[in-house]
This record gives sequence, structure tokens and C-alpha cells, in this order.
Amino acid sequence: MSTSNRRTVRRPGGRSARVQAAVYAAVGELVSEGHRDSVTVPQVAERAGVNPTSVYRRWGSIEALMSEVAVAALTGDEPLPDTGTAVGDLREWASIIAADITRPERIVYLRAMVGARVGIPGSCPCWDVRLTQADEMLARAVERGESVPTVTQVLDHVIAPLYHHVVFGLPVDDDYTHRLVDEVLAMSARVPAPR
Amino acid sequence: MSTSNRRTVRRPGGRSARVQAAVYAAVGELVSEGHRDSVTVPQVAERAGVNPTSVYRRWGSIEALMSEVAVAALTGDEPLPDTGTAVGDLREWASIIAADITRPERIVYLRAMVGARVGIPGSCPCWDVRLTQADEMLARAVERGESVPTVTQVLDHVIAPLYHHVVFGLPVDDDYTHRLVDEVLAMSARVPAPR
Repeated sequence: MSTSNRRTVRRPGGRSARVQAAVYAAVGELVSEGHRDSVTVPQVAERAGVNPTSVYRRWGSIEALMSEVAVAALTGDEPLPDTGTAVGDLREWASIIAADITRPERIVYLRAMVGARVGIPGSCPCWDVRLTQADEMLARAVERGESVPTVTQVLDHVIAPLYHHVVFGLPVDDDYTHRLVDEVLAMSARVPAPR
Repeated sequence: MSTSNRRTVRRPGGRSARVQAAVYAAVGELVSEGHRDSVTVPQVAERAGVNPTSVYRRWGSIEALMSEVAVAALTGDEPLPDTGTAVGDLREWASIIAADITRPERIVYLRAMVGARVGIPGSCPCWDVRLTQADEMLARAVERGESVPTVTQVLDHVIAPLYHHVVFGLPVDDDYTHRLVDEVLAMSARVPAPR
């Protein structure tokens, strides 16, 4: 569902594309103006110059909309690192993510997303994107014969601590990021990594 | 500073104690009423029946106040697990934390705290409490001659993913919690754990 969602979202045509662009821009504006914790569908609709009903019909809730904008914002077309080793790929990938999510406007945005995800447990679209990216890098490592952790381990022990630190205001730098990568790679020596 | 803070906070006397109790209660009420993302000092002061100036003088900011309430709420007087092994202690400890932070009222509260921690990077009081707890259990394990990860590794690879999952609405259960503990213990086999 999130895959087809992303496909639909990325290349909509005509009126649909204009609505989407206006709504995304409205979300970005509202968040950057400091309405980080309280963006509502009616606010977004007003700012975008569309009917709230259109927003509800297409996105269902402010949470779904904000998650989608987050995914759209974070999945630029930057290629995944391909350095020839798992440690090289994961360090570079984690550094790119850390640099991205520690930008002030991104921090505000992430916190707004956290605020909006109330009462909606389940899959988080950003998480799914990271999962797909990690899977691709680890699959290449396995083909090279490297011993690697699972995709889930990489997400739990590299991505989760990075996002945790950002949203709770703890410091994140390259030393921290690379240490997380080295530590998850150390796991694959002991915990069997069924892929 | 956070230690003396906690001491002051726990056993204040007279008027100071009444102000603190009223302010804590006001924060709890406002959060539980759904003002999770937008609690302000004036709101808290009004609800508590105290002067906003008193709140600012004592706590400085809504962020500091909310963090303090969170610490007060999470540091009940429950004893730390002492099962005789690091894996037993850490699994039980992580399960207690997971059960606590997945309660609906706690999730709302945590998200409010995330929303309030804008532009205030640095130490997070909840994090400091967990660090002290992990340190005590790991010190006992080291005395028993067990090979254990560092306190920082336990926080980064067990506590951070748990909080991350809760605030981003991803599922948390005992299987997940125990897996995180087992994985961080596996690290200590490879990564030297200087304590």
C-alpha cells in the first residue's frame, strides 16, 4: 500500500498534481512558521486554497498527510552509497541521514510528525523507506560474501537511535553515527543473521 | 545539576511543595485533555492558580517543566531488577520501561515532551535517569565477572529504539524488547567495552 501510494504521489498529473503541490507547500510553510505541533487539515486546506474535503478524501488525516510529505521530502533522488563494503555503505548512508535530520527545519518537521502520529500505531512511511534502502545495501554485501546484520537490526540500532536523539534533543554527529554502524556490524558476528 | 534538581523536586516543603504539586497536576491535566502539543507556561499557571512569573522563575521554560514532570512520573520508587545475570536484569528492566511508555497516557505525554523540546539540544533528564539505572545493573554484572556492553551502548541500542518506536507509533512488545537486549549483549563479545 505504501509503495503504490508513493508511486501515485510522485507522478500525479493535472489538477491532482496542482492540489498535491499546493498542499505540500502549505504543510511546509505552516511547519516552518512554527505551527509545528498543531497543523490541522482545515489550516492546510485554507493555506493551499483547496477544500478541506479534498484533503480528507485524498489523505484521510493530517497524520497521513504529514507522513507523506516527510517521505517525499526525504526520498530525494540521491543515489545510495556503493563503496564496496558494508561498513563503508552504512557509514555513508547513516551520515547522510544524520546530516539531513539534524537540519533545524527538519527537526521542527520531525517533531511535528511525532505530534501528529497520535493514536495511529502501525507502519511509519519513513521507516519503510529506510528499510528498503538498508535492504539494498545489505543485499549487495551478502553477494560479496560479507557477514552482515539483518535489515531490522540496522534499522533498530542505527536509524532508531539517530531519530530518537534528534527528536529528544540529544546531540548527533558523525562520530556517534559511525559508532552506531560499527556496533550493529559487531552484532552480526554473534547473532545469526537469517536473510 | 539534574540530581540536585530531582532532590529538590521530590521533597520540597510548604508553599514550594504546594506550588509544585499544583503545577505538576496542571501539566498532567492539560496533557491528558489533548493539549499535548501546545502546553504553555501561562496555561499551566492559570490552571494551577499560580502566577506565570513563579513558574518561569522556578522552571525557566515549559520544556524544563515538562521534562521535570516526566522524570518525576517515570522515577517511581520501583526497585531495579536484580536477577543475578545481566541478561535477566536488562530484559526485566526493558520490559518495565516498555510497559510504562506504551500506556496511552504516557504516549501522549512523551509526544508532548518531544514537541516541547524545540531548540533545546543537550541532556534530556529521562535519558540521565536511564543512564544511572543501566550503570547500576552493569556494575553488578561486572562485579560478577560478566562481559557486558557499556552503559552508552545499552541506552543507544535498547532505550533509544524503544522510545523511538513509541513516539513514531511503531509496535513495541516483549519479544521486541528482549531481542534488543539480546542484541546489545551480543555486541560486548566483539566491541571492547571500556568501563
